[in-house]
Parts: sequence; C-alpha cells; structure tokens
Amino acid sequence: MLNVSIIGASGYSGAELAKLVARHPEFSLTHCFVSEQSTDKHKLISELYPEHTGLLDIELEPLNQQAFSLIEQSTDYVCLCTDHKVSVELAPVFLQMGKRVFDLSGGYRLSDNEDYETYYGFSHPYQDWLTQAQYGLAEWYGDAIKAAKLVAVAGCYPTAALNALKPLQQADLISAQPVIINAVSGVTGAGRKANVTSHFCEVSLAPYGLFTHRHTPEIEKYLSHPVLFTPHLGNFKRGILETIYVTLKENVTTNQVDAAYQVLADEPLIRLKASQLPSIKAVENQPFVDIGWQQKGNQLIVVVAIDNLLKGAAGQALQCMNLAAGLDHYQGLGMSA
Amino acid sequence: MLNVSIIGASGYSGAELAKLVARHPEFSLTHCFVSEQSTDKHKLISELYPEHTGLLDIELEPLNQQAFSLIEQSTDYVCLCTDHKVSVELAPVFLQMGKRVFDLSGGYRLSDNEDYETYYGFSHPYQDWLTQAQYGLAEWYGDAIKAAKLVAVAGCYPTAALNALKPLQQADLISAQPVIINAVSGVTGAGRKANVTSHFCEVSLAPYGLFTHRHTPEIEKYLSHPVLFTPHLGNFKRGILETIYVTLKENVTTNQVDAAYQVLADEPLIRLKASQLPSIKAVENQPFVDIGWQQKGNQLIVVVAIDNLLKGAAGQALQCMNLAAGLDHYQGLGMSA
Amino acid sequence: MLNVSIIGASGYSGAELAKLVARHPEFSLTHCFVSEQSTDKHKLISELYPEHTGLLDIELEPLNQQAFSLIEQSTDYVCLCTDHKVSVELAPVFLQMGKRVFDLSGGYRLSDNEDYETYYGFSHPYQDWLTQAQYGLAEWYGDAIKAAKLVAVAGCYPTAALNALKPLQQADLISAQPVIINAVSGVTGAGRKANVTSHFCEVSLAPYGLFTHRHTPEIEKYLSHPVLFTPHLGNFKRGILETIYVTLKENVTTNQVDAAYQVLADEPLIRLKASQLPSIKAVENQPFVDIGWQQKGNQLIVVVAIDNLLKGAAGQALQCMNLAAGLDHYQGLGMSA
Amino acid sequence: MLNVSIIGASGYSGAELAKLVARHPEFSLTHCFVSEQSTDKHKLISELYPEHTGLLDIELEPLNQQAFSLIEQSTDYVCLCTDHKVSVELAPVFLQMGKRVFDLSGGYRLSDNEDYETYYGFSHPYQDWLTQAQYGLAEWYGDAIKAAKLVAVAGCYPTAALNALKPLQQADLISAQPVIINAVSGVTGAGRKANVTSHFCEVSLAPYGLFTHRHTPEIEKYLSHPVLFTPHLGNFKRGILETIYVTLKENVTTNQVDAAYQVLADEPLIRLKASQLPSIKAVENQPFVDIGWQQKGNQLIVVVAIDNLLKGAAGQALQCMNLAAGLDHYQGLGMSA
Repeated sequence: MLNVSIIGASGYSGAELAKLVARHPEFSLTHCFVSEQSTDKHKLISELYPEHTGLLDIELEPLNQQAFSLIEQSTDYVCLCTDHKVSVELAPVFLQMGKRVFDLSGGYRLSDNEDYETYYGFSHPYQDWLTQAQYGLAEWYGDAIKAAKLVAVAGCYPTAALNALKPLQQADLISAQPVIINAVSGVTGAGRKANVTSHFCEVSLAPYGLFTHRHTPEIEKYLSHPVLFTPHLGNFKRGILETIYVTLKENVTTNQVDAAYQVLADEPLIRLKASQLPSIKAVENQPFVDIGWQQKGNQLIVVVAIDNLLKGAAGQALQCMNLAAGLDHYQGLGMSA
Repeated sequence: MLNVSIIGASGYSGAELAKLVARHPEFSLTHCFVSEQSTDKHKLISELYPEHTGLLDIELEPLNQQAFSLIEQSTDYVCLCTDHKVSVELAPVFLQMGKRVFDLSGGYRLSDNEDYETYYGFSHPYQDWLTQAQYGLAEWYGDAIKAAKLVAVAGCYPTAALNALKPLQQADLISAQPVIINAVSGVTGAGRKANVTSHFCEVSLAPYGLFTHRHTPEIEKYLSHPVLFTPHLGNFKRGILETIYVTLKENVTTNQVDAAYQVLADEPLIRLKASQLPSIKAVENQPFVDIGWQQKGNQLIVVVAIDNLLKGAAGQALQCMNLAAGLDHYQGLGMSA
Repeated sequence: MLNVSIIGASGYSGAELAKLVARHPEFSLTHCFVSEQSTDKHKLISELYPEHTGLLDIELEPLNQQAFSLIEQSTDYVCLCTDHKVSVELAPVFLQMGKRVFDLSGGYRLSDNEDYETYYGFSHPYQDWLTQAQYGLAEWYGDAIKAAKLVAVAGCYPTAALNALKPLQQADLISAQPVIINAVSGVTGAGRKANVTSHFCEVSLAPYGLFTHRHTPEIEKYLSHPVLFTPHLGNFKRGILETIYVTLKENVTTNQVDAAYQVLADEPLIRLKASQLPSIKAVENQPFVDIGWQQKGNQLIVVVAIDNLLKGAAGQALQCMNLAAGLDHYQGLGMSA
Repeated sequence: MLNVSIIGASGYSGAELAKLVARHPEFSLTHCFVSEQSTDKHKLISELYPEHTGLLDIELEPLNQQAFSLIEQSTDYVCLCTDHKVSVELAPVFLQMGKRVFDLSGGYRLSDNEDYETYYGFSHPYQDWLTQAQYGLAEWYGDAIKAAKLVAVAGCYPTAALNALKPLQQADLISAQPVIINAVSGVTGAGRKANVTSHFCEVSLAPYGLFTHRHTPEIEKYLSHPVLFTPHLGNFKRGILETIYVTLKENVTTNQVDAAYQVLADEPLIRLKASQLPSIKAVENQPFVDIGWQQKGNQLIVVVAIDNLLKGAAGQALQCMNLAAGLDHYQGLGMSA
C-alpha cells in the first residue's frame, strides 16, 4: 500500500481525489489538509460533502509545521489540489523530502517562463523544477510519468482537447490554420469558493477569458499547433464539452481521419463515437473521454466530452499515480456501468 | 410624480423594486443607494444586472452623510431593501424627516418584543415606531396602509400563506389544530450575497430552519392561528410554492370552502384556481398569487404559489406605495399576458 | 452465478437494474427485453443511454413467444420493470415456469382487492398469487423475502416513507392522527416515456395526485397507520425528499425518538443524520436512505431522502434478489465514496 | 385596430405571439387556431399555459372549413406558427384572400429551390410566391417588409447571426474564409411537442445537425458569405448564444470593427456591449439582441445572444407586423426594465 496525502482536499478536485484514493485497492489516504486559514479546518470531508457520510469521514487537518513532518514521515505521494501560486511553492518542499508530487494546478505545466509571465502574471521561481516536471496526460506520456518525481497533471480543458487533437496531429492531417476550440465547462470547474459568478441565480451560459485563458499555451505546447481556445461557463455542474473546428490539409479523406483515431482504439478510458456525437450527459460521473467527429471537405468538426473532475483533475491525477506505482493507469476508476 | 429612493438597491429585491419604480407612470426613481462599504458602490445597476442594460443604468450611490441630505431634499418615499438590523435603525431617521418609509425587512413586522428576542435575537429598540408600523399586505390592509407613515412590507412566505389562509380563518372553518405549511422557495429568496449555500453546485432541495424560521410568528400574528411552518430551499431561481395542510372543523363542506375564497374573487392579483393546482412555472415573473385547494373529509390541502420577488418583496412593496399614493394597489404591476 | 432476465429494460428503472446486475459478482445479466411493439426493439441499451457505451452494450430483445422459452431455459430470476397491468399478467406465467419473480410495479403490493379497485381501477385477477406475494422492503422483511417466489418490490415513495416511519410506529410513539407526508420526486420517477409533463420546459415544482396516489394504501398497509400522502414533481432528475409531519403521543421525549431509530443503526444502507437534515444532493446516485428529525413538543418532523432509482426501484429490487440468493442484501450496491 | 389570427397558437412561438398581439395597442387577437387533429382543440391557451390564466383565456379553434371563412371575413393579418410543410400550403390560400401573411416557418425564406431540396427535402411548389416573399429581419429590411404581402419571418438562429455579422460584411471587413458560428439554443427552440430529446432527464448540452442545419443556407443567403454553422441544444429553456469566429481581412483595426457596428447604434432592440460579453441570462425574456466582440490580430470573436421566442420567432414576427402597419418596428415589445 502506498500512502497518499492530499493538500487542498476541501475543494471539488481535492474531495473527488480523496474519494478515488480512499476506495483504491493499492493506495491508502493517509492525510487530508487545508490551509491553516481555512474555516473548514478540522471539519470532516463528509461535513462539507454530506453525500460522503460514512464513506469519507476524514478530518481536514491544517497545513501547519507539524503537518509537514507528518507528511515527511508518513507519505509516499503528495497531491497538490491548491492554487498554482501555492503549488509552485509547495512542490519543491515535498520534492526535497523525496516525495513524489502530483500537482493538479498549472504551476508546472508550461516550460517557457515567458508564458508564465504572459498568462499567469509571474516569473517562475523554480526553473530547474520546471524543467524536470513531467506533463501528466496519462494516455500520451505514460512512460515518462512512470519515471517522474514531479507530475504536472494536465488541466481539464486540455485533457479533452489534446486527446481529441493529438491523433490528427500525429497523423499530420491538420492544415496550418489555427484550430478553433469552443469549450463549455460545468460550474465545478470554477471551484467551490463562493462568489457571485457561481451563484445559483447568476450562472448562465456565457463565454469568458477570450484570447487569454491559461489553457491556451498548455494546449499549444503539447499539441505543437496554434489554437484559438474560447471557454464558456455552462449552467450544469459537471462536465466539459468542446466543439473543435479543424481545417484539414487538402484531400484528407474520412478514412485517413478514422485511421488516425485508431491510435486510441485500445485505450480503456477513451470511447471513439465516430459520427455519434458526445454530450455532457454521457460523460457525467464517468471516467471516459468521448470523441466524435464529422467531416465535410477539408472541414472537420471534432466533439469531445469529459467529466471535468472524474476524467479531468482528480481522475487524471489518479491515472498518473497509478503509472507512478507501476499499475494500469485506469485502475480504481470504476469502469463499470 | 412622487420621488422614490431605494436603500439596498443592489440585491434581488432592491433591483426588482428599482425596475418596477423606474417604469411606473406615477413614481420617479430619484436615487439608489448601497452601504458605503459595498464593493458595488458607484456601479450602475445594469452592471450588476446586464439584463437591465439601457433600462436601469442608474448609479448605486454610497449611503453617506451627503446621501441623507439628498434624500431629505429630494425624496417622498424611502424603500428599505436592507437587512432587518439596518432597517430597524434607518427607518426612524427617515420618519423623523417626515418621509414615508416602506421597509421590506422583518424589522417592524412583529409587535411583540418577545418574538423579536426569540426569533430575531435582539430586543427591539424602537417600541413606539413598532406600535405605529402598519403591516403591508396590500389585499388585506389597504385602508390602514394608505394612512401609515411606516409600512412593514409583508415577507414573501407570509404573502403566500396569509392570502391562502385568511379566507378560511375569516369564515371560521379552521379547527384548533395547527396549520402545517410546507414551503419551498427559489434561491433568489436567499439573497444575492455569495455563500456556499447558494453556490450553483451546492443548491439542492432541502429543508431549513425547522420550528425556528422568523416567518412563523409573522404568519401566526396576522392569521391569528398557530402554524407549523417548514421552509425548504429549492433548485430554481424565482418563486415560492406552499402546500398547506388544514384540518377543517367538523362537517365543513366544499361549498363553504369555495364560498370562503370568494372574498378574493375580485382581487386582480389573485387567481383562484380551485381544483387546478398551482405550480412555480405558472407564477414565475408574474405578479399573481395562485391558489388551489382540494378537500377530503375534514382534511383540506391548499396550494399557493407566488413569485417571491414580483408578488412578494418588491411587488408587495409597490402595492403598498400605490396605496399610500391613492392609486390602485396593482398599478404598475404589468398584468398583461 | 444466477441468471437474470429483465423485462422492460429500456425505462429508467430497468436500465438502472440492468447496470446493477451487469456489474454484480454473483449475477449474470442473461437477457433484456422490451415489448414487441417498442421502437427500441433490437437496439442496445447503450444506444438509448450513451453513458453506458462499452459497459452495457446489450440488445433489447422483443418479448415474443421465443423469448418466453429462452427465459424458461436460461433464467433463474425474472425482473419485471413493466407497467402494473403488464406485470399482473406476466408474473404468473414466469412463476408457473418455476422462476423467482421480482416485480417493480404495484401489481402485487396490496393484498386488499378493494384497494386495487379504488386506486388502480381494476379488480385483481390473481388473488392467490396476491396472497403469496411478499412485499419487498429489504431492511424490514429480509427473511420472508429470502423465502418468497414472488417479490413485490416496494415503491420509491414508500421505500423512503416506511424506513422513516416504521421505527416510530414499532416503538409505539405515533398518536392516532394521520401522518402527513409531503414528498417531492425527481422526473425520472415519472418514467422515460415522452409527454408534455416531463418536457424540459414544462417541468416545474408542483403537486399532483392529492388524496388519490397509489402509494397511499401501500404506505398505510405496511405502516399500519393512516397517512395523508402528497407527492410533488420537482425540477431535478433523480431523488426523492419527503418532509414528514408526525404528531407524537403525549410526553414522548427526544430520547425515545432517538432510541426508536436505533433499530436501523446497523443497517449499512441507512444513514441516521439526526438533527442534520437530508437533501437531494446527498443521496443522488447513492444507495442510501438518509433520515433526519427534529422535535418540538409532540410535533416531530422527519426528513428522509433517497435516490428513487438506486435505493428505490432498481436498488430495492437488487437488495431483494441478494436476499433470495442468500447474499447480504446490500451486495453490489457499491457503498464506496 | 388590425385584426390578427394565429394558426398554430398552441406551440411556444404561437403562444408567445398570441401574448404579444393580445397586449398590443394597435392589434386585436381575433382568432387562434390549431389543426383539426390537435388534442388541444377547443382548449384555452391558458389551460396549456397556466401562467396566462386571466390574460390569455382564448380558445384554440380547429382549423376547419368554417375557420377559413371566419378568417376571410374577420382578419387582416394571418400569422403562421406552423411546420414549414403546412405553411407552404397555407400561405397561398390566405394570400389569395388578400390577407397579409407572416410565416414563422422556413417555408418561404430561401429563394433557391435547390436549397429546399438539399436542406428541406422537397421541391418548392410555389415558386411565384417564393419570389415575392420578403425575408422578415426587421432591423435590415424595414421598407421592403412594409410593402410585402408575404413575410418570411427570420429564423431564430439567423436573427442572432445576421445582426452580429451583417455590420462587418457591409463594412467589407470579413476575409474569404467561412465564418464559424457555434450556437447553443434553449429547449423551447425544439418546440413543445413531447419527445425523448426534450425530456427533462435527457436534455444535456450536445451538438446536432452538423453541416446540415436548415439555417445554414438562410444565413449564407442574407449574409452573402459562406458559414460553418453548428447548433447545440443547451439545458436551459429560452435563449440563444452564438460564439462566432471571424477571420478579418488583413490589417483591419479595432476602430474599423467598432465603427462597423455603429450602423446598429440607434436600433432600440439592439444593445452593443463591445468588450462586455453577452450571456443567456441577460437576454432571457427580453426583446434585445446583445452583441459583444473582442479582437486579436485578424481573429475576431463576436458573441451574440437573443431570447429565441421574444426577439426571435414571435418578437421578430411582431416587428414585421408593426412595419406592415406603419408603426415603429419595436412597438409592443415592452422595452421597460
């Protein structure tokens, strides 16, 4: 059994990850932490999430000095479900302890410091760790993740976009034009912190972050192709749907497109729907990436859907932890109906 | 034209009232205020509520000293859409200025100070004004409201419950047993302030405030009958539905019940649905009280629905202001399809 | 392994049961059927429910003559997820084959034929089977269910109401007055058949079936106490919340009430929340019954919530099948976070 | 007063139009019809739409022979809220009676018969009327609509798309590449007829009609530019949000784009939001077109939102009727907060 501690376990991603680790046959959920300032300190996860009563009655301990020594002694894997500013500082501390660190934030996903300045508004203080960090997209970088000390778990939007686009890019079918990604995310993607934006009466389908969203450079880096990424907030709780507009190279046939996606045909967490199009409903509370596509001439529309917490964020992190532990990446993701 | 100022115009009730006053033929919306501490200070209402762009581009002024003199000079009616603690203190200030005050909070609805201690947790500092305050339930206290300097506008739950029950009580059809009121309110009823309770992902049908809700003594006072009032938060934005269980006196006939409701037959804002039962959908964004009822032996179920903002809160306040101005109480409530 | 066939597997209960049986370690999902007239005939369950793609790609076979011989040869347990009129006729056919029958409809839940005439509008043609049928409420009739050939699986509303009320009735704490049950169900409870009532734009919190709902006699029979049961349709997909008003006998203490519920303390699928009140969110997609209560004098309010498909309907049926198979009643109900 | 009859008044568009006509100062709602086969025949609109009780208690008469003579004698304007197949046949009948016809279907929107064969699957039987039909997009074809006998009211998606794109096209700012329109519509857009697609539990954000939607040729015809139009069904009741990706010609400045939109600056039903982006919430139950845009290099993203019934469909039809009657096109569209 490997001992796992989660920092930032009160949020949606952290609690989802706690749930997955707690029921995983090979992992033991040793400790869950929140910041010392948090009003959730010393509460049980099941007090914040009554659905977990009897299943996740574990205390949210404050991340104080004592906590660090606790982690040093008791933990193999440290999961950071914290804001990128916090993750950037915490990761090196635990890495120096010799722990394996899985960071769900964007703090170590980009290699180019200029991107951090442009999209995150700060100069990255730990270039060395940045260089060593391995991007955590389980279906694509399995061997590297196995070996990595620091895994920068893929973002939720990129998890969907990259699984949908890398097959086409690997097969060299995409023309030079930027790929347009129109994405809609459920409100869990905005986090549990209370603010007017996530108020029940204020949520309404609307775009945000045009041209400036932090997942733009992340997708471009791992796709090696320019994208125009436009996120929207949708009025549903869980799930991401991306409608992707690809201009194909001249004379690319539907057979070539279908063949390109065969690279994912054996992936147990990926469902190739071909012309049957994905929906939020079909992936809600499911660990799958659903991918569908339709083509007309050199215009290809790819539609991809995931559960932003169970395949994105927490699920993706668990896949990376499985790989680090030498297990099948999909273990503990409950692929039953 | 009468000049109206609204204190607390950034919340759901305040903005709804601002909307109603702004398009009222006889009222002029002179000023809208928020507390000096509010981050919405100096914003336009239409910045907070983009649906009102071009219709309600009025500034939210801070309620500072200058504001009070502004109100003294320019305003006839002052509407308090503030927390009851704030209303309790503000009302006397404006009354001393000789203004007519319409308080949408519970600060002046109860006459018995003991009820304030039990349900509101404070001893009421202005017993004299409490005695002079007139309860603002337009269909039932029209003449008194016309004459009142201080109107304590009825609460949203009581607006529905009292219109549904007073006809039966006036006809002396209710047995001694407490009336059971099972109520469900939309999330606007919980206010616009951001907190986890009103987070899009946390809202879910659930009861709250069992035995202790502040509307219990309010309903009991104006019904003159004991009630067991149980509110629930529902996963919809606007509207209140109350399913009310009345034990009738022995041998009360359906004709007697139907006859009792005839007292409301000519009220333009009340729709007697008889056996056709109300729903949230039928009253959403409507100024009506829908009342339906079915009887079996001495068990009577009355179902009543209103829009908590447009018939409750803001709408009810406008009705009271109409009465004070010598107008039809329903004027400006847009009773068109 | 026991072989299970499901009749009526295209509806919400049937598909949920198919999902549970398919992943159950001791059961094998042999066949799924729909009526010969159904347009879903020969489709896969996963075509109707894309979320089950790769998990439940099983054909919906037409229930024709050949189907009956297939069942005769291949099946141990037959589950009827059909309308009560259909179930009433099908159950005896499979019972004569010597199969164990689990009927999710109301066709065999009531013993009194008069109740069938009053509430179901027909005279029951199979009094003998009606006498032999065992009511399927797993937590309360385990031994009898073990032995029964025909199990009339409890309805969704009664599953919630009876688990909440039988402890009080067994402890003899309920006064003579009828218990008032105010219930709200998600739209899956109304079935998958398309009609205006379940249209996305028409659904809105509203009561229905006052004084006449078929679950009234069912609850009264197994509670042995009169109830006033008022169902509502709520604007959510899954879940039932019941707010129950009990008039206790004189001088019943909170200790007596708490003690009464201890009879359920060891039930793995029941979560006693005491003063912490249940919500729809806490039971959605969960196999639990959440029960909370608060008391004032002799007025007791019990709030109970279940997932209408996963604890009601399909889940309840699986519990009964487990019992029939000599397994723990909760096996295969995935009680992990 | 002009007499108006509505054919197909039981659907969402028809009922919305009936509401608008009933409260319009210059129009009189003479008759509302449904097909002779309809089960809603002889019901009141307010029975189907309880929110209209007391406001729209008008009978849905069967469209039989007698109905046609009724219309001939009593009606000035005939509104067709019927399926395009029905509209195509009915329009000429009423035109021969000398009535002005406003068709809300797609039956007369396209001039090219080939488009009807490709997108509607039939060859248009009335080429002459097709030629005379005037497209009903009020802000753009006012004078022609004034003079037209037959108005083919613009579709809901095109109403949003054309108001958002025609200013750019008129200013000649759009490059040769197809414009990509990613659109999401509320469920009222799918009509009131019950089917699984609009079942409360089945609705979920998902795309449909890729490359084949009937509004594609409609938008292309009136924009005179190729578009890639991808509609989605969203899980909300009313409203359309379109996120539009335009590749501008080289070196087009933001000033040029802003200037282009000035052509709409004085339109009372159009709100130019510039960099503040539209949302569904801001246009729900509002007669406005909200348009926002942001630019990066030669990539322009235009976001446009409307209420699909109150600005699209019924609202658009009323605008056309106003024009035909020589009134301001926005009259009766209640532009108050």
